Amino acid sequence: MDRYEIRLSGAGGQGAILAGIILADAITKADKFNVAQTQSYGPEARGGASKAEVIVSEKVIAYPKVTKADFLLALTDSALKKYLPDLKKTGSLLIDEEVFIQDKDLLPKEVIKIPIFKIARDQVGKIITANMVALGAMTALFDFIDKGEIEKVIAKRVPTDTVELNLEAFSAGYRFIVE
Amino acid sequence: MDRYEIRLSGAGGQGAILAGIILADAITKADKFNVAQTQSYGPEARGGASKAEVIVSEKVIAYPKVTKADFLLALTDSALKKYLPDLKKTGSLLIDEEVFIQDKDLLPKEVIKIPIFKIARDQVGKIITANMVALGAMTALFDFIDKGEIEKVIAKRVPTDTVELNLEAFSAGYRFIVE
Repeated sequence: MDRYEIRLSGAGGQGAILAGIILADAITKADKFNVAQTQSYGPEARGGASKAEVIVSEKVIAYPKVTKADFLLALTDSALKKYLPDLKKTGSLLIDEEVFIQDKDLLPKEVIKIPIFKIARDQVGKIITANMVALGAMTALFDFIDKGEIEKVIAKRVPTDTVELNLEAFSAGYRFIVE
Repeated sequence: MDRYEIRLSGAGGQGAILAGIILADAITKADKFNVAQTQSYGPEARGGASKAEVIVSEKVIAYPKVTKADFLLALTDSALKKYLPDLKKTGSLLIDEEVFIQDKDLLPKEVIKIPIFKIARDQVGKIITANMVALGAMTALFDFIDKGEIEKVIAKRVPTDTVELNLEAFSAGYRFIVE
């Protein structure tokens, strides 16, 4: 794999950045690829919006940020509107099934719609775990991530008494793709 | 107070609904007003967006939903765009300082801008507490809510080991208005 650019985006507090950090951490630990991870919020990302970027490559990563994304996770209408233009046409888009697609012409060949928030709210019981549902789906979609490795990182990165809940959300998202 | 209509809105996982539930619960407990609380998410609120409504009145509340809001909390650009048209011109708007105002003509006389996400992220240390920062600000703005009552309800409604953090966020939002 030469260079694979992943962008995770959403509104503030939805946990897109935490999901990106966990993703990057787990790929780094597997020790097969070079990984670069950056994040941004604040003025650039209005209204507390946030994004995390993860670059994965077998080669040295000269530039650590997304130039043209291979994969985009967009948790809100605004995030999709903002970042869809920078997604490759040959790339993949992961969105909640109810996110509004304004520019249909910009859609890449692969669009994966999942009831991310519905699963988090109704199946897991905590809408706040939506980021882990999305991370589970991404783990099932990517062939360069080890599921067990991600689960270990989740257990380390979330508050102790929410580990079980977060892992349940992760599994629910994973299963939605795999089953 | 005849009838005061409050709407709290944001993206899924930002906790607008929890803030609305806590607000309604605390006003109910004070036993001075009638309170009606409703919430919605799902197809009506795309992409996991969510809203909670709280009606406060000294009279019997015949209709439990917002008709024309007196107060609007909007945590995202989308929420503001969607709900600003239903806010009274004589009402109040509470937004994050970086939320984008598309329709300036629709703004009410009172617009309160607070760095909600910045406070949650940098001061409290957890962006996920943005809803409590907003609730703290609302408590300082409303003369019909008792601060102590809200704090008791927060302590009861959030996970045990996050009580302190949530109360800290609540206080930070409160102080931003009061000081």
